[in-house]
Amino acid sequence: MPKDMTDTHTIFDRRESAARSYCRSMPAVFETASGSELTDAEGRSWIDFLAGCSSLNYGHNDPDMKAALIEHIAGDGIAHGLDLHTDAKAAFLTTFEEHILNPRGMDHRVMFTGPTGANAVEAAMKIARKVTSRTNIIAFTNGFHGVTTGALAATGNGYHRGGAGMALNGVTRMPYEGYFGRGTDTAAQLEQMLSDKSGGVDAPAAIILETVQGEGGLNAASASWVKRIAAIAKKHGALLIVDDIQAGCGRCGTFFSFEDMGVTPDIVTLAKSISGFGLPMAMLLVRPEHDVFAPAEHNGTFRGNTHAFVTAKVSIEKFWADDRFQKQLADKAALIHDALSELAAIVPVGALKGRGLMQGVDVGSGALAAAICARAYDNGLVIETSGNEDQVVKVLAPLTTPVETFRKGFDILMKAAQDALEHPAKIAAE
Amino acid sequence: MPKDMTDTHTIFDRRESAARSYCRSMPAVFETASGSELTDAEGRSWIDFLAGCSSLNYGHNDPDMKAALIEHIAGDGIAHGLDLHTDAKAAFLTTFEEHILNPRGMDHRVMFTGPTGANAVEAAMKIARKVTSRTNIIAFTNGFHGVTTGALAATGNGYHRGGAGMALNGVTRMPYEGYFGRGTDTAAQLEQMLSDKSGGVDAPAAIILETVQGEGGLNAASASWVKRIAAIAKKHGALLIVDDIQAGCGRCGTFFSFEDMGVTPDIVTLAKSISGFGLPMAMLLVRPEHDVFAPAEHNGTFRGNTHAFVTAKVSIEKFWADDRFQKQLADKAALIHDALSELAAIVPVGALKGRGLMQGVDVGSGALAAAICARAYDNGLVIETSGNEDQVVKVLAPLTTPVETFRKGFDILMKAAQDALEHPAKIAAE
Amino acid sequence: MPKDMTDTHTIFDRRESAARSYCRSMPAVFETASGSELTDAEGRSWIDFLAGCSSLNYGHNDPDMKAALIEHIAGDGIAHGLDLHTDAKAAFLTTFEEHILNPRGMDHRVMFTGPTGANAVEAAMKIARKVTSRTNIIAFTNGFHGVTTGALAATGNGYHRGGAGMALNGVTRMPYEGYFGRGTDTAAQLEQMLSDKSGGVDAPAAIILETVQGEGGLNAASASWVKRIAAIAKKHGALLIVDDIQAGCGRCGTFFSFEDMGVTPDIVTLAKSISGFGLPMAMLLVRPEHDVFAPAEHNGTFRGNTHAFVTAKVSIEKFWADDRFQKQLADKAALIHDALSELAAIVPVGALKGRGLMQGVDVGSGALAAAICARAYDNGLVIETSGNEDQVVKVLAPLTTPVETFRKGFDILMKAAQDALEHPAKIAAE
Amino acid sequence: MPKDMTDTHTIFDRRESAARSYCRSMPAVFETASGSELTDAEGRSWIDFLAGCSSLNYGHNDPDMKAALIEHIAGDGIAHGLDLHTDAKAAFLTTFEEHILNPRGMDHRVMFTGPTGANAVEAAMKIARKVTSRTNIIAFTNGFHGVTTGALAATGNGYHRGGAGMALNGVTRMPYEGYFGRGTDTAAQLEQMLSDKSGGVDAPAAIILETVQGEGGLNAASASWVKRIAAIAKKHGALLIVDDIQAGCGRCGTFFSFEDMGVTPDIVTLAKSISGFGLPMAMLLVRPEHDVFAPAEHNGTFRGNTHAFVTAKVSIEKFWADDRFQKQLADKAALIHDALSELAAIVPVGALKGRGLMQGVDVGSGALAAAICARAYDNGLVIETSGNEDQVVKVLAPLTTPVETFRKGFDILMKAAQDALEHPAKIAAE
Repeated sequence: MPKDMTDTHTIFDRRESAARSYCRSMPAVFETASGSELTDAEGRSWIDFLAGCSSLNYGHNDPDMKAALIEHIAGDGIAHGLDLHTDAKAAFLTTFEEHILNPRGMDHRVMFTGPTGANAVEAAMKIARKVTSRTNIIAFTNGFHGVTTGALAATGNGYHRGGAGMALNGVTRMPYEGYFGRGTDTAAQLEQMLSDKSGGVDAPAAIILETVQGEGGLNAASASWVKRIAAIAKKHGALLIVDDIQAGCGRCGTFFSFEDMGVTPDIVTLAKSISGFGLPMAMLLVRPEHDVFAPAEHNGTFRGNTHAFVTAKVSIEKFWADDRFQKQLADKAALIHDALSELAAIVPVGALKGRGLMQGVDVGSGALAAAICARAYDNGLVIETSGNEDQVVKVLAPLTTPVETFRKGFDILMKAAQDALEHPAKIAAE
Repeated sequence: MPKDMTDTHTIFDRRESAARSYCRSMPAVFETASGSELTDAEGRSWIDFLAGCSSLNYGHNDPDMKAALIEHIAGDGIAHGLDLHTDAKAAFLTTFEEHILNPRGMDHRVMFTGPTGANAVEAAMKIARKVTSRTNIIAFTNGFHGVTTGALAATGNGYHRGGAGMALNGVTRMPYEGYFGRGTDTAAQLEQMLSDKSGGVDAPAAIILETVQGEGGLNAASASWVKRIAAIAKKHGALLIVDDIQAGCGRCGTFFSFEDMGVTPDIVTLAKSISGFGLPMAMLLVRPEHDVFAPAEHNGTFRGNTHAFVTAKVSIEKFWADDRFQKQLADKAALIHDALSELAAIVPVGALKGRGLMQGVDVGSGALAAAICARAYDNGLVIETSGNEDQVVKVLAPLTTPVETFRKGFDILMKAAQDALEHPAKIAAE
Repeated sequence: MPKDMTDTHTIFDRRESAARSYCRSMPAVFETASGSELTDAEGRSWIDFLAGCSSLNYGHNDPDMKAALIEHIAGDGIAHGLDLHTDAKAAFLTTFEEHILNPRGMDHRVMFTGPTGANAVEAAMKIARKVTSRTNIIAFTNGFHGVTTGALAATGNGYHRGGAGMALNGVTRMPYEGYFGRGTDTAAQLEQMLSDKSGGVDAPAAIILETVQGEGGLNAASASWVKRIAAIAKKHGALLIVDDIQAGCGRCGTFFSFEDMGVTPDIVTLAKSISGFGLPMAMLLVRPEHDVFAPAEHNGTFRGNTHAFVTAKVSIEKFWADDRFQKQLADKAALIHDALSELAAIVPVGALKGRGLMQGVDVGSGALAAAICARAYDNGLVIETSGNEDQVVKVLAPLTTPVETFRKGFDILMKAAQDALEHPAKIAAE
Repeated sequence: MPKDMTDTHTIFDRRESAARSYCRSMPAVFETASGSELTDAEGRSWIDFLAGCSSLNYGHNDPDMKAALIEHIAGDGIAHGLDLHTDAKAAFLTTFEEHILNPRGMDHRVMFTGPTGANAVEAAMKIARKVTSRTNIIAFTNGFHGVTTGALAATGNGYHRGGAGMALNGVTRMPYEGYFGRGTDTAAQLEQMLSDKSGGVDAPAAIILETVQGEGGLNAASASWVKRIAAIAKKHGALLIVDDIQAGCGRCGTFFSFEDMGVTPDIVTLAKSISGFGLPMAMLLVRPEHDVFAPAEHNGTFRGNTHAFVTAKVSIEKFWADDRFQKQLADKAALIHDALSELAAIVPVGALKGRGLMQGVDVGSGALAAAICARAYDNGLVIETSGNEDQVVKVLAPLTTPVETFRKGFDILMKAAQDALEHPAKIAAE
């Protein structure tokens, strides 16, 4: 190991908090990245099937966004704009309205929150509570909505919940579609409990859901279930919040994950890939009648990350101005589906999960999934797990990944799985 | 008004949430910025005495940071790195250790949180609760720590608290130094209530404070009070959290606001100017024995904003590698003090507030302060108010502001005050 | 209407809070009572099928308890004893140990709480939280556990929950047995959610349940379900609390409602009929290893209602020293079952509910149930409804009610139902 | 030790919860009581300066109440009446209206809650929250309001708070009058924090206070402070709740503790001595405009303890129908004051506390106070301590205690103090 790398590792060990995580299983020191490829300080490359957890849907350093950003910076464009008007914000809003909102018939207002998904979720929950004068919010098993106190209450993951150090209030947990198996209609259960005067579930301010639970194991809800949840929300005077932070921005094959489902959420949260370039940006879309925050009632220093507006605008214009990109996504989703079906077929209890470009394979155990990902990493593929037992190998490649790169990645993944399956004793010992 | 501006305004009115705020009193559409100057789409310029609420301590588009950032982007440097190791993160940590932590004898670990100050505060509160297995956190009157649910509980501002739509728990409010006037020793009051077995204040996990309350009206605590609070925290088994998000990064004349106070906080939160360039970045410093989060227990997609690491590194090397910058700050603080003393002298109940480069004048009423700032804006100066009645005209200029620019800004400010004072009837009608 | 009655009514209207309730549908001013009969100021009598909501399981003014109580009072026996030792408390404890605890192999300690059921529930919940250092308590749909803040969080009834005026925290709601119909295994659902690391239900301090939900509509759990819940509690490190306040003290045919179910609750709450005479008394039974309250950590002025100890002792000796009473209860339960089956048969959607001497008929609507009870009252029978829609006509007669009185009561009830069913239009107008 | 006593002790050890308390320092098994005297199973007698913690203000087994109660029971009067109309309730209400409410110009409604003080406090807090749609309630240092979850949040005592096993929310703690010494105006501090828009104390639903803090160490508020608190409550739209559970029913020399203070509380809680005989009874008085509970919205099985209504009526008629009793109280208060002044004089740091018949001596340490009370008990006097360090020897004798008995009791107390002071080493070793 060359001296430099030792040294940089030293600084992480010496000074970075134990809270760091991905770097433990993928210890390279990355330097550059382009498209679907990451390269480390020693020149070693990896295909990226993680894409910043879906924050890099258009790949690393997209040349058009890069050019626009460099031009903006070089020209002394605003970097930090609070919530002042800037030309960059106006341009983004105009583009977003023209290519995203208007074509989908959405009259939502855009609220720029602090640039984390959790912040957008917090704002959404606060709005719902303010609108309804109610506290309770319905969230689902295996949902993930962030780790700040308000959002964490809605997150199902016990590992993250345990980090709060205090009781997390204001949320009622309900089973997601399919949670109790195909025979159990969880929407009907929710409706029954909310309609029961002694059901013990307080009238909700909102129902918050992901249409595909990214962290929860790629559980994908059906359109009919989401529609019924939307109807239940409406019936009970609750807002419907779709947390599209991971599943949105094209990840499911359309810009919003829900757009083919026949629902109009009252609030949509967006973050991760909304900047297009991996820059911190988060926002929510809110129906005008629910746009109830007074000026700065929910604020935040970085709600005007102007660099992100610049790249976000390019991402919308480049990929969503017409339907070409969306059509490519359909092809790629099929490709992923086929490749993962092969993978699932060789795993004894393997099951395909997810939809669109947010698919994976439940391999039955966290240990096996970790072993597969570790072997993939060693062979040049960055990929991660999700699920309540970390048992799902999850493909979150950039949406722009070329077919050839997909195939290479899947080859590595398949071999990693074969190797892991052939050496179960080694996995147990890992 | 030219057509373009009308149009851009239209998009804000049409599509941006009512939560937007600063743009209401400062309606220009800003395009470029350099140093301490902002320029709008029509070429009009303003001196910036707001500096992104202290997020732009080194001014807009610092040429060295700009060059480094462009080079990084042009070279396909990592933009979004999750919490993977990157060369940029290693370089920042190394620089921060060498020029900030080591010279100050601080053994703290660095935790990169989601890139908002609120996120760093949430993480700090969670750590304190996890370390102590206690829930209660002591926060102070007029403190501001963010608006996500956990942080908002610690924030005193009722306007922001009202946005929660639910009860905010887990925090006990105590009076800040001087809150009840000079004769009342609020540290002694805190000590008495915590020591009283029937005082009704549960044993605290932490005491969180700003040494200068930026949003709360530039209330500056004395070193002796902060030291006593630190001693009280220690005595009662609580962690001391200094929220240095606004007051840190040189704003008070030293890198940390507390470094001449003889205290070593268990946790320090940093955000705003830590990237140097106004890019979203937040982190906390935590003593090794309190670095208790398990991997990813507190996580967040954008905790590795690599662009910010690049500029942050330059900011530390350029301004904090030796003591020249700090010496300049002392001179500028004196300049601000003198200028604001003149301003305070012409306001009937004017009183100087704050310290270092975080000073202002309490003009006695929010209406007068707003009138002064509005006139200043009209004459080319961006400046804002703070305080529980928005009664403090607050100077948060870039620390790098040239003396000449300071003088120009203060001239505008003085004239604005004179004008506002001469036309009280107009203010009342505004 | 005679003058006296007008006058007494006046004082209630004038000075008693609007929170009063039963007196609205049963407006007589009652004066005396004996056995299963209530008599008002005008000499009119009613058969009592309400029994103080199961607080008068041995009827009104049982002669043996009456004699013992008068003797105690006449002899200047202690009335109010705080938690000092008294001969009366010793005698009660000795009797309770000999005839209740020992024969059932129960090693529980007896804790006298404030003399309300809610207080016993609060103490039970506090103990469970103290024992486990966890906050979350699992409670069930349609459960009723009292209306003080802690207990109310466990109560399902939305009408009562609404009285809190604040969010009720610390409880997770789960479906009771049969809640989603016979095909749905709610114990399995609970087990799945608790075992799921991302299920979003925090590890519980306790599971609290009634084996028959008295207020919730006489939903009776099966032994096998209760056993499985007990096993789930044990597996997940939670205490099992059986709230036997309404269903205990013989109401279900055995002293405890659960004693034939093969479970040993960690905590049992008792109130209502535990004094035998309708006097305020509440207590909980707690396994020795969970008897963790420090002296007076949970206290209350009236936890030593010595009059209640006197009558409670007589009630145990008179009814539970051998198995004769219990055998009579079996006969009476059969009688009630038969009579209510006849009633259920004439109601279109009538369904028998409950078990033991805690049975009723779900008549399908609250309006019909209210109409039946109103007619019964007019014809000399005091009876009430329960259930989430108040749709269950509930028989809670004293356990000591003679067969003849039962028959008279059921005759009145049957006629009331016939009359109500024959005049649906009148009901709708009521 | 005779066999019987051993046996009875055995049953307490074997079966009573470790939560029992008073019996630990006063281990006699009490059998009878009359007036101000308690007698145990062996015929030993004690003068009672504890009076059931002020639940026996008219002494034990008052002959008139006793006679009325026996007559009621013997005549099969209602024992348990839910909230049905009974003659006994009507008679109590009529008497209470005539002799208590009307003469004091109080238009309050009477709400009978579950028969514990905590239950009345819970109801009061719920009403305030329902009336105002606010959550926050202001309570004071060293206040004691009960140990159920809602009331416990308002209680200052950390020992009791620790029993909750969870965070106690919804209450803001403020310093009581004199808490920070005479120089500090705590009403002004409260007013400042409530008026400050960034004070961080949410708008309150209520302010709850005891005019003399019984458990908190006999801290007696001045009329002027209470009036100012009342004015602050009104100004800020909060209800004023006076918790008169311990200080009311004549304990301070007038029926209500506050009646000479020039305030009309919105809600008054009463319990302890309201039944007159030590029977469980609690109620609250609420201004008609705040009587907002819907029927049974706050309910409880024992809210109609009819035995208590019978004795309560006698107590009002016997002691409060004219001003003779009140005049006697003034004399007795003076007697207590003089006797305790002598006691205070012999204790190095002794200080008189309280007012009326609720006085005591702060002896400077809990160890000394305990030693004094232990010696008093050994010599025939039942007396207890209070205060945040249990440092106050508290005299809570029946108000009806004859002068001669007072003198005997004080003689015992004085000798106990002398003995304790002469043997400090023994105390330290106890």
